[in-house]
Amino acid sequence: MSQQTLSKAGTKASSGYKYTFAARMAKTPKSFIREILKVTEDPRIISFAGGLPNPELIDVDGVARATAAVLAEDGRVALQYSTTEGYRPLRQFIADRYKKRLGLDISPDEILITNGSQQCLDLIGKVLISAGDHVAIERPGYLGAIQAFSLYEPVFHPVLLHEDGLDPAQFAHELKANPIRFFYGVPNSQNPSGVTYSEQRRKDIAELLRGKNTLLVEDDAYGELNFAGKSLPSFRQYLPEQTIITGSFSKILAPGIRMGWVVAPPAIMEQLVIAKQASDLHSNYLSQRIAYEYLTHEDIDTKIRVIQARYKAQAELMVSLMKELMPASVRFTTPQGGMFVWVTLPEGISSMEVFERVLKEDVAVLPGTPFYTDGGGKDTLRLNFSNSSPEKIRAGIGRLARVIRDMDRP
Amino acid sequence: MSQQTLSKAGTKASSGYKYTFAARMAKTPKSFIREILKVTEDPRIISFAGGLPNPELIDVDGVARATAAVLAEDGRVALQYSTTEGYRPLRQFIADRYKKRLGLDISPDEILITNGSQQCLDLIGKVLISAGDHVAIERPGYLGAIQAFSLYEPVFHPVLLHEDGLDPAQFAHELKANPIRFFYGVPNSQNPSGVTYSEQRRKDIAELLRGKNTLLVEDDAYGELNFAGKSLPSFRQYLPEQTIITGSFSKILAPGIRMGWVVAPPAIMEQLVIAKQASDLHSNYLSQRIAYEYLTHEDIDTKIRVIQARYKAQAELMVSLMKELMPASVRFTTPQGGMFVWVTLPEGISSMEVFERVLKEDVAVLPGTPFYTDGGGKDTLRLNFSNSSPEKIRAGIGRLARVIRDMDRP
Repeated sequence: MSQQTLSKAGTKASSGYKYTFAARMAKTPKSFIREILKVTEDPRIISFAGGLPNPELIDVDGVARATAAVLAEDGRVALQYSTTEGYRPLRQFIADRYKKRLGLDISPDEILITNGSQQCLDLIGKVLISAGDHVAIERPGYLGAIQAFSLYEPVFHPVLLHEDGLDPAQFAHELKANPIRFFYGVPNSQNPSGVTYSEQRRKDIAELLRGKNTLLVEDDAYGELNFAGKSLPSFRQYLPEQTIITGSFSKILAPGIRMGWVVAPPAIMEQLVIAKQASDLHSNYLSQRIAYEYLTHEDIDTKIRVIQARYKAQAELMVSLMKELMPASVRFTTPQGGMFVWVTLPEGISSMEVFERVLKEDVAVLPGTPFYTDGGGKDTLRLNFSNSSPEKIRAGIGRLARVIRDMDRP
Repeated sequence: MSQQTLSKAGTKASSGYKYTFAARMAKTPKSFIREILKVTEDPRIISFAGGLPNPELIDVDGVARATAAVLAEDGRVALQYSTTEGYRPLRQFIADRYKKRLGLDISPDEILITNGSQQCLDLIGKVLISAGDHVAIERPGYLGAIQAFSLYEPVFHPVLLHEDGLDPAQFAHELKANPIRFFYGVPNSQNPSGVTYSEQRRKDIAELLRGKNTLLVEDDAYGELNFAGKSLPSFRQYLPEQTIITGSFSKILAPGIRMGWVVAPPAIMEQLVIAKQASDLHSNYLSQRIAYEYLTHEDIDTKIRVIQARYKAQAELMVSLMKELMPASVRFTTPQGGMFVWVTLPEGISSMEVFERVLKEDVAVLPGTPFYTDGGGKDTLRLNFSNSSPEKIRAGIGRLARVIRDMDRP
């Protein structure tokens, strides 16, 4: 068992006490993004670096009404301990919404409420990954998943992502070359790339997995944020026994209630519930009750349409400014939903250098390297458009394009 | 790598799809308690099996006031994403309270807010335990810790617990025999035994650990529930560089806000923050803001004194009834705080059989075996007194004593 010994980097001076940590900690990437976000907390900075929903679209009054109702009607219960699986009416609501939105038959027993959808990734890692197991992931892949899974010490197999989804040929090759435990992907408005898999690509991927001992984890944090209000098929439709779906209320209701869920076939769910209980007994029950009260008394569909329209306008503005202002050698995605545009810089231009130069002009962008498990992505950037006003997008993209143009000169 | 293959126990019929889970799942005890608690959900049952605070003592109106204030004054922020470490004013409040209550100098930077104190145990396991590492634990030990740590596949070394605390001779022996990564204990009103370590015993244990490469995890969920309002020294006073403390608002404010915290020296905290971020990004921010608003605007000290007085009366009633009604061969602890009495049955009487017989008389008790990592405890029971009225305690202990007297006849 290899151990990592760190000297004490503490405040308590002098005794030189040595701490020993579990081997897995050495394998977990440090939070590069958090360090960047600290730099960008300054309100003068125009930040495209984060991944926050637009706070103007959070319905504070609706949440306040829901909370007051829950506490007035059932406060003693809502403030007590509860079940590991989560509030059953909320799980039923989620199941019904899958039926309505995607035509999926999901039992509430196949749904577990989590502390945000990030916790789903931790639980999935706990339940499925033994050290050295093989996990396939998109390239670029979601940083939060890379972090969560890394603690369980898998071998990552990154598979190239195109504008229409995962590369089927490379995926087929990876499946043949190694016993892949599961593939993790974000088929709708991927983080970081903004890519949405086409229906054909979903079918191709599903066919490659059918009946194999490889599961598919579909992270659907952005499924409700398709700008056309379009719902593309879930992999559960093609592979009901092999698909795990993760969902979140953070993007459609509010991140501060920290509420997500995971959908899994019964045999997997049984293990997830054991892992959830060991991890934190159950999710915040007051927030579960608030979410249910909100979802059943406020008009969530209208709220979602408002969010879709706003993000669509912001994304279109960002993309049109980039078309206008960036050198032709800069490539970028055209998102159909979600919160991000993905930029590939011209040959030889480093995104870390772009980050540093544009920060001097009070604009923050996110270099793409943390989204790569293989050290790649040094010429990529992620830009967030959800949490900026049109004015900020205009000013920020203008400055970013100028910096890149300056660097792109021969 | 050993793997556990389970056949699908699902609803989806027939294809016979086989799931493979991570090796660690085979090592995690199934939730015996949860199964029992399901049996006891029937409101006719007098339950001493659970571990719930008394819902009558939850200040619903105070929480409602705090919530309304937070949402009215800073709703958009309280409902947005937040920092992994937690709301700094809340961490400062906790630090100040340690100073006032225990004379400890703790920086808010040494405090991380968690999703209940159960999550502290998961994070500690993640950060400190590699598979095969040695962990010392009380015998009997807290079930939630056994579950959380088991997922990281340690070797447990149970150390006998006496009425005045851990057995120092056996602990010294275990420390010599194996490189113990950490000792986990509940020095105040232990769960399940109700035992509080004497001051002398704390000093003895601390001396054995001083300067050694073994940490001490002090689970202090019940420190504020000492019936005499007494605050015994934390191990941090003796071993500042080696002590991790876990705390919880569940017993003094409300379990439904699912809010706990962990205190650790800076070098350990750095790793815990990485693990927390990978596990769920951050704790429920709305609930953190509610807790802080409540703690700074309501009279928490008076509320705690009310809880102490009520639990003290209920514990004394339970113990006095047991003295009066149980056969002399039944032994039990006299708790100085917390929520539990621990019962050791006469030679040859099985607690599972007591559980089954007394359940037929609509009384639920908790057999002690899940609190043992070595298969022991078959003659032990845990009784909860916090969540029962005096009438229920009288009726329930009467029936339990009758069942045990019947079984104790030669």
